[in-house]
Amino acid sequence: MLNQPIAIIGGTGDQGKGLALRWARAGFEVVIGSRDAERARTAASEMRATLASFSAADTRIDGAANADAAANARIVVLTVPFNAQIATLKDIRDKLQTGSLLIDVTVPLEPAVGGRPTRTLGVWAGSAAEQCRELAPEGAQVISAFHNVGAEALADLDREVACDVIVCGDDKNARERARPLVEAIPGCRYVDGGPLANSRTVEAITALLIGFNIRYKTHTGIRITGI
Amino acid sequence: MLNQPIAIIGGTGDQGKGLALRWARAGFEVVIGSRDAERARTAASEMRATLASFSAADTRIDGAANADAAANARIVVLTVPFNAQIATLKDIRDKLQTGSLLIDVTVPLEPAVGGRPTRTLGVWAGSAAEQCRELAPEGAQVISAFHNVGAEALADLDREVACDVIVCGDDKNARERARPLVEAIPGCRYVDGGPLANSRTVEAITALLIGFNIRYKTHTGIRITGI
Repeated sequence: MLNQPIAIIGGTGDQGKGLALRWARAGFEVVIGSRDAERARTAASEMRATLASFSAADTRIDGAANADAAANARIVVLTVPFNAQIATLKDIRDKLQTGSLLIDVTVPLEPAVGGRPTRTLGVWAGSAAEQCRELAPEGAQVISAFHNVGAEALADLDREVACDVIVCGDDKNARERARPLVEAIPGCRYVDGGPLANSRTVEAITALLIGFNIRYKTHTGIRITGI
Repeated sequence: MLNQPIAIIGGTGDQGKGLALRWARAGFEVVIGSRDAERARTAASEMRATLASFSAADTRIDGAANADAAANARIVVLTVPFNAQIATLKDIRDKLQTGSLLIDVTVPLEPAVGGRPTRTLGVWAGSAAEQCRELAPEGAQVISAFHNVGAEALADLDREVACDVIVCGDDKNARERARPLVEAIPGCRYVDGGPLANSRTVEAITALLIGFNIRYKTHTGIRITGI
């Protein structure tokens, strides 16, 4: 598992960067993808410096153009803003290897059309994750996860991330493939979210949490009790 | 507050019974509402017996027809199945006092049309709570709450209910009126859910939790971390 590189498409954004830092620190090989390869390499270099200051030796983070990052990874994580999701998937779909795990982290927040981050847009397919599946090649396994983990919490490497990660996908084995990535982040817990269509709710929870963050002036997460 | 009776419309169902037991035990005066007044009185009598066995002395639970229960309460809680929500609101709307707090607990689960409890139906108004507001009289304050608290957890009086209660409504003062009802249930915590439209997500979370209950063979709830 640790020898399978993880490509983070849109990895120069806050959510992608936060996940990259956490996974590289845990020993995973990470490739940051960006539309601009140079920008990806710069971000990767900054992250290596950040991790060096946390005495995480031998971290492996590199940068590449999105399509190249996707072509060379068995695990591909999509962390782009909603208004870039379709174009990005069209850009990388032909490069994905058969059997690759495609983890969609997209949340259809209203700012994609100039609205509020406490609201979501309706998606014809049902959810951003289901839209991702429509655009993914036949041989890819599409799941969704990490929507509810705040970028601020991920970036604060001194701190545990107090958040369950609800993983949705129609194939239980595909969902389970994400478990090591969840458990690599201190304070995160894997929760089996069932079918991909349940992403409709998990994505919407992100907007709800953003509302809590605003009302309570804090960074919130979610825990499922009783498990 | 303790002297304001709480009417629980549809109070002979599992969710309504569970809330009635918890509130009566905490000292609130509760009136169970049902389409059939006799059935409501029988349920109330059974609940008094249950509470007596928990040495909760001097509990005040009575039963009445829905419309009569609603007419005599300043706090009216709607705990009917989704397919009874509209008819019930039409039945009680003319009886509600101006300034009454109407707490909608309805979740538009798919079994209303023969489907699965892990799925919700789309509601034209956006959510069951917003549908409730459309049908409520002008002078009532409509909020939503208690969707995510499981009936089994409420009924098990020996046990704390490990669940936050996300309260949604467009008026912050109206939301706050529900706080004592939340805090009367051991293990529940009041969380300010913001606008009534956020009920869309909070209602859907119930279906998600039902899915967890099935997959993990347990009773789940939700906590917001970081607050």
